[in-house]
Amino acid sequence: MSNASILIIGNEILSGRTLEKNSNFICSRCTNLGIKIKEIRIIADQKSQIIKNALYLSSKYKNVFVTGGIGPTHDDITAQSISDAFSRRLVLNKKAKILLSNFYKKKKVELNSSRLKMAMIPERAKLIFNSVSAAPGFKIKNVWVMAGVPKIMQSMFIKEVEPKLKKGNKIFTKNIKILSAEGDIANILNNLQKNYKHIEIGSYPFIINKRAATDIVFKGSNKEIIYKVIKIFKKKIEENNFKYI
Amino acid sequence: MSNASILIIGNEILSGRTLEKNSNFICSRCTNLGIKIKEIRIIADQKSQIIKNALYLSSKYKNVFVTGGIGPTHDDITAQSISDAFSRRLVLNKKAKILLSNFYKKKKVELNSSRLKMAMIPERAKLIFNSVSAAPGFKIKNVWVMAGVPKIMQSMFIKEVEPKLKKGNKIFTKNIKILSAEGDIANILNNLQKNYKHIEIGSYPFIINKRAATDIVFKGSNKEIIYKVIKIFKKKIEENNFKYI
Repeated sequence: MSNASILIIGNEILSGRTLEKNSNFICSRCTNLGIKIKEIRIIADQKSQIIKNALYLSSKYKNVFVTGGIGPTHDDITAQSISDAFSRRLVLNKKAKILLSNFYKKKKVELNSSRLKMAMIPERAKLIFNSVSAAPGFKIKNVWVMAGVPKIMQSMFIKEVEPKLKKGNKIFTKNIKILSAEGDIANILNNLQKNYKHIEIGSYPFIINKRAATDIVFKGSNKEIIYKVIKIFKKKIEENNFKYI
Repeated sequence: MSNASILIIGNEILSGRTLEKNSNFICSRCTNLGIKIKEIRIIADQKSQIIKNALYLSSKYKNVFVTGGIGPTHDDITAQSISDAFSRRLVLNKKAKILLSNFYKKKKVELNSSRLKMAMIPERAKLIFNSVSAAPGFKIKNVWVMAGVPKIMQSMFIKEVEPKLKKGNKIFTKNIKILSAEGDIANILNNLQKNYKHIEIGSYPFIINKRAATDIVFKGSNKEIIYKVIKIFKKKIEENNFKYI
């Protein structure tokens, strides 16, 4: 299965001001593509942190999805930091300038020096087009740098990133909800997992009508084995008179 | 200012099944305590990953807040992994056993071997009590291990962790919303940030009634300087005929 990681950049997340949702979107999309997200890191708008984490994740995983810090203000330092990480110069990208110029002309807004900063792209990077607000993201090596604003990031990811990703093997997932606490079915799950190491069994407690319940998630690339394990699981559930939800 | 980091453990987050909210809660609480969260890492339920990241964050930051993976099922491997990270044995904690025993007795639920697993705690770790469902978290060195279920984690953090944390200097925060795009005010903000390096100015775009707007956040430990900067900022805003929201 293909792997990837996510690097979220933004002080507003670390201060608690903003609930970070971009990584959840990327994780869901990647799961559907058969790409496994192995880790997520959330760091400050700080050059040394961005450089260190981008280089590490880039060396370790097939793809790195970066969001945040490519706007027009002084605290948007992602493009410069990623340039530095890969020892590239940050240069005015002509294509990006034209995109911004056309976008702002249509809106009758001045393309001032602050906005022009968004056309400063690491040399030899490929642009990631932005159909919402023109200012592009970019790709260097295996690092995809996207906007932090969820609507823009989602549009970039779906339209520009996904079509270029190498899909992994489709992972088959099935979940079953039981009206029993985790502690009641843990032993059944433990034995199943021991006997079927190639599937992943996840157990997630929740409360329904004030009663403890569990959502069990079965995952794997082989559909037949998943069905087989679920059949055994259901037999155990019924033998013990546990109830489905 | 005191610093800390967060380590979130759970396959369900990396697959996109679950929107992770624990880190946002901890970040908000820490900001109010004057503790700066420097980074967040989200990793899988995988022993080698847990060991590596727990040790790194523990060595680098004053506190590490860990959530997830301390339940009764086979996929709950956080206690064992943290034990291994710090070369401690995972042992049956008598106090934890009594807590579980009393809790399940009251509920007329059997304290079976799966549930008893939740009393297995690294030796010499301090318990973090759980007023919701009894199964405790624990603290080793500067690493606080809490449940992943938000309600339980929040109760542990507020009642058991916060009172024991050393508070940092109170950070003063004020935000001002302007009915202008970031690109229109970026230059003003840039100059202000250059002249006042000891305060942090964050700029966050948003849309209101289909118009571009910006939320500007001023932060720092010196209230007087924040007020001074805001005064200068407001003067610039008014000179330019920008509107407040």
